[in-house]
Amino acid sequence: MKRNIYLKKKSLDEAKEVVSKMAGLIRLGKEPVPVVQAVGRVTAEPLFAKTSSPPFHCAAMDGIAVRAESTYGATEDAPKTLLVGKGVSFVNTGHPIPPGMNAVIMIEDVHQIDPERVEIREAAHPWQHVRSVGEDIVATEMVFPENHKLTSYDIGALLASGHREISVKKKPRVLILPTGSELIEPEEILLSEHSPAIVESNSYVLRSLVLEDGGEPIRHSIVKDDFSKIREALLKSYRESDLVLIIAGSSAGSEDYTRSIIEEDGEVHAHGISMMPGKPTLLGSYKDRPIIGIPGYPVSAIMAYEELVRPLLYRALHLTRPGRHKIHVLPIRKIPSKLGTEEFLRVNVGRVGNKCFASPLPRGSGIITSLTKADGILRIPSLSEGLDENEETEVELLKPVEEILNTVLMVGSHDLTLDLLANLMRKEYPPIFLSSHSVGSLGGILALKSGICHLAGLHLIDPDTGEYNFPYIKNYLEGMEVRVIHLVHREQGLIIRRKNPKGLKGLGDLLREDILFINRQKGSGTRILLDRELRDLSIDPVQIHGYEQEEFTHMAVASTVASGMADAGLGILSAARAMNLDFIPVAKERYDLVVPSFYFGEEKIQRLIATIRSEEFKEEVLRLGGYDVSRTGEELNF
Amino acid sequence: MKRNIYLKKKSLDEAKEVVSKMAGLIRLGKEPVPVVQAVGRVTAEPLFAKTSSPPFHCAAMDGIAVRAESTYGATEDAPKTLLVGKGVSFVNTGHPIPPGMNAVIMIEDVHQIDPERVEIREAAHPWQHVRSVGEDIVATEMVFPENHKLTSYDIGALLASGHREISVKKKPRVLILPTGSELIEPEEILLSEHSPAIVESNSYVLRSLVLEDGGEPIRHSIVKDDFSKIREALLKSYRESDLVLIIAGSSAGSEDYTRSIIEEDGEVHAHGISMMPGKPTLLGSYKDRPIIGIPGYPVSAIMAYEELVRPLLYRALHLTRPGRHKIHVLPIRKIPSKLGTEEFLRVNVGRVGNKCFASPLPRGSGIITSLTKADGILRIPSLSEGLDENEETEVELLKPVEEILNTVLMVGSHDLTLDLLANLMRKEYPPIFLSSHSVGSLGGILALKSGICHLAGLHLIDPDTGEYNFPYIKNYLEGMEVRVIHLVHREQGLIIRRKNPKGLKGLGDLLREDILFINRQKGSGTRILLDRELRDLSIDPVQIHGYEQEEFTHMAVASTVASGMADAGLGILSAARAMNLDFIPVAKERYDLVVPSFYFGEEKIQRLIATIRSEEFKEEVLRLGGYDVSRTGEELNF
Repeated sequence: MKRNIYLKKKSLDEAKEVVSKMAGLIRLGKEPVPVVQAVGRVTAEPLFAKTSSPPFHCAAMDGIAVRAESTYGATEDAPKTLLVGKGVSFVNTGHPIPPGMNAVIMIEDVHQIDPERVEIREAAHPWQHVRSVGEDIVATEMVFPENHKLTSYDIGALLASGHREISVKKKPRVLILPTGSELIEPEEILLSEHSPAIVESNSYVLRSLVLEDGGEPIRHSIVKDDFSKIREALLKSYRESDLVLIIAGSSAGSEDYTRSIIEEDGEVHAHGISMMPGKPTLLGSYKDRPIIGIPGYPVSAIMAYEELVRPLLYRALHLTRPGRHKIHVLPIRKIPSKLGTEEFLRVNVGRVGNKCFASPLPRGSGIITSLTKADGILRIPSLSEGLDENEETEVELLKPVEEILNTVLMVGSHDLTLDLLANLMRKEYPPIFLSSHSVGSLGGILALKSGICHLAGLHLIDPDTGEYNFPYIKNYLEGMEVRVIHLVHREQGLIIRRKNPKGLKGLGDLLREDILFINRQKGSGTRILLDRELRDLSIDPVQIHGYEQEEFTHMAVASTVASGMADAGLGILSAARAMNLDFIPVAKERYDLVVPSFYFGEEKIQRLIATIRSEEFKEEVLRLGGYDVSRTGEELNF
Repeated sequence: MKRNIYLKKKSLDEAKEVVSKMAGLIRLGKEPVPVVQAVGRVTAEPLFAKTSSPPFHCAAMDGIAVRAESTYGATEDAPKTLLVGKGVSFVNTGHPIPPGMNAVIMIEDVHQIDPERVEIREAAHPWQHVRSVGEDIVATEMVFPENHKLTSYDIGALLASGHREISVKKKPRVLILPTGSELIEPEEILLSEHSPAIVESNSYVLRSLVLEDGGEPIRHSIVKDDFSKIREALLKSYRESDLVLIIAGSSAGSEDYTRSIIEEDGEVHAHGISMMPGKPTLLGSYKDRPIIGIPGYPVSAIMAYEELVRPLLYRALHLTRPGRHKIHVLPIRKIPSKLGTEEFLRVNVGRVGNKCFASPLPRGSGIITSLTKADGILRIPSLSEGLDENEETEVELLKPVEEILNTVLMVGSHDLTLDLLANLMRKEYPPIFLSSHSVGSLGGILALKSGICHLAGLHLIDPDTGEYNFPYIKNYLEGMEVRVIHLVHREQGLIIRRKNPKGLKGLGDLLREDILFINRQKGSGTRILLDRELRDLSIDPVQIHGYEQEEFTHMAVASTVASGMADAGLGILSAARAMNLDFIPVAKERYDLVVPSFYFGEEKIQRLIATIRSEEFKEEVLRLGGYDVSRTGEELNF
């Protein structure tokens, strides 16, 4: 079995150098386009004005055109009468000044005596209220240089200077070739509903990015992992493109053919880039065209595109690449990172008080939602081993900063009603965004203490008294004034497989040899609840198979059970219902939101509370099942 | 004659309130779109995952799938042999884990003994290198809420969660109705070459802006200034739209019908907004639709669109409107502004040293190039009377900040070769931009002294010695170390009408009664040259007709002569040639660039000098005519 290894590893900076040389292979031709369709295109030559604008002397105001000299001497005390048609004519804004005249008197300053006569009470000076020919653009002057990307405004200047059609650079054509035997086309989604399959999505994401960057994407259909099939597809299609992207197959596996195919008919310049995600990227040339092997994991594919393909397209179009808006942030916790690799960490960002905090999202390069949920990207340079908790750094924003400022940052326990809440909060205008991070109830209370969130969601039972939340608030948040808004009561229980194939009856059965449990993480309210229940039943946790396997959300527990990886886990009824699983009730618990009084008056917090109190929210929560909303939205005093 | 007056004047803030109420009239329906075409569209409902991603447990690495328990005990010293097919199967990244197996061992760690046997030297732990079902997205979870604008990334998450088609908001349809009897359609440009006319361009600019903002523009053809024709067009077309924009005719002239037409079939909410440009804007409702009367001047039209129409579209789509990137600037001079009016001043911005400076562009609302040449917009609030020279303020950038940082800011005398230079400097990559401001040679030297530019262009003759530039540098820039790069020698002379209809022979003829002169502004090198020549000829300037009429550039002087507004002006040969005029030589002069030594080493300055010294530049300059490039690019010592 032939295996690849990364023989031509490069740092990201070295790879960027390679790319800037590869860009030299792309030579874009010119093509004519009508001016009215030229927005976003790049001029292929300097454009000189064909006509002046305005093209003649014209009235800048509605009024009468006169010869200024004929008005001299007119004053308030000694008005002058002029004869319409004899040296006076009515003009509207934009209309030519008749020959022999050189000034306009505003209609407001003209008193019409009768159809033949007008009276004026002030003299006009030459060229008053006249836009002289070429005031805006003089014929022959350069309106736009070569290599200029045309904006909407520019269309106005081009039409005004007499252009109807102009010469622009052709768009760089980008062949996108997805490979992988395990993939199906999006059109096959419905057909595959009963036999789950992985949908090829990278090519469509790259296609959109190429369009955004002014290129012309050409998507090839999926090619199976087969040396000769991929080679054949490439040989058949490359001619119509200026740049080739092959997706997947550039890693080091036995079915990773990209490298050997390029070596067959071209040259590999770099293979393996010290970036994360995005390491298995390959840079080469193929029949005088740049070719880039894009990794198959979705986040890797996007990072490889943005760091290496995008600069190539901008270079080919000869445009300056605009950077993203950056803001200063503090990480909410220590973030270690691998020395020698540039890491692109996806983060959520929220402003709490006068500081912005970044919370890392999952780092896996297969997790596309780490990008779609991200507010920004935090680059950790290759020479850094990561960031300390209080180390200020920069985040490149993926969203308008206005959205970040309108985001409520919530940290704490996970609950399914939070999605409903987030959705409803966006319905009013301007929208308020809810960004919630599942770190468990205890994590939420600690985040409040550190001042890195606006509010925390808790369902913490005191093992000794059975009281919810207040004992923890008193204990952990001493000296901090907080307000407590009750969200819901909800049912916790054992989430088990549909139709209960193993005949479970309650927590006692967890001790059975044939039962594999899936647990929640330490510090989560559900874990604390479980441990209290086990203690009451005198069950020793170490005797439960799977007790040490932890997940972070109710849905992850339900999903683990649904997949057959476990037989049971403790979680909320709504999660069981969502995954179509069975449920054995264990306890009813109180879930509250805790807000420092300091933030309580802020509009976004008030909007959140108003939404919680709305009938619409309560109705939607009830539809999920397993919730009691009879006291939802009440402020609790302790 | 019926005349309008602004009866419902509003401040810009009041107008924005009106607009936000008008937005309530727009109710966008839903429509299905394929996910792969959904970028930029706005979700019409929350989207829940139809499948999990990954949809099954799959290999996260290329290697062998095993049951972890079967590997226990394997070490470097005691390797374990496993049988392919019997509890071991080869898997590639993304492929499903066969039933009964629960871990993957990387191919790099597998030693294949023969086709039937593999050897491992380390035990696997359960779920090692396995992506478990739902690791990224769990079926039934909310992938995107309602009112979410889909990005390229989002396409990936939608496909991965089993969506093939989704429901999005319909685009707001915007009817754009241009009016004006003086206008021609862009298609008529060629036909009109011999009878100059004003091309209707506003509708195409607005059309592009509507597209940028996610709307669906519907452009109507030009309608003449005629009450019944405009009313008829509106009645015929409004039904197909969610919002109507009528361009022009909303001012206070006799042919401004927008207001009376709306009053006939709808309601006017505001007419006359305290903004500049953009005052004659009208807000109303027409048959249950918002209608906006957009002023006819191009900059006014754009400002009215951006301040009032854009927020309406964002409101209708329920999206947060992203602001522009802002930077802090110092104005290069005092900028007075009208109290009670919010002004949108178009400015160029450049960073000189560690400060950014803003130079105002022409303020006329008819000057579209004041927007196309602008780097940003400086808002002067309605309660301000303007800005002082050293009053720091903010500019909203229209260009990437990267371009601003790569801009050489030049202030001083105007010359036609500067356009060529600017064009050539952009040809290399990354492009360097040259922003030049014509304020005359003396203005340039004063700008250098104030530190608000990187370099100045001078052609200043010492009236006493006839020496160029050095005496002024010594006199005005005492104590400042500068370097002087020679640009060109050029011919100055009288620019006169073609075929010299008035038989001019030289400066002496300027005293003639029938000759109207057009002058350059005080402080310009050309003006100083003229005054010196007149002194040598003992001509008293006050006896020259038109001596007090000033223009700021050679092209403006040539254009004035070409239009018949003057018989002669002093200027350079290339300007006369560009406008196809005749020329009577007067003097040959030296034009130099002066750079403070402090900036001389900067890359952008060095790139400028290298471009000046290139053969390409010299050849292009010679093609203009009237230039001597024999010493172009030399550094001059004094």
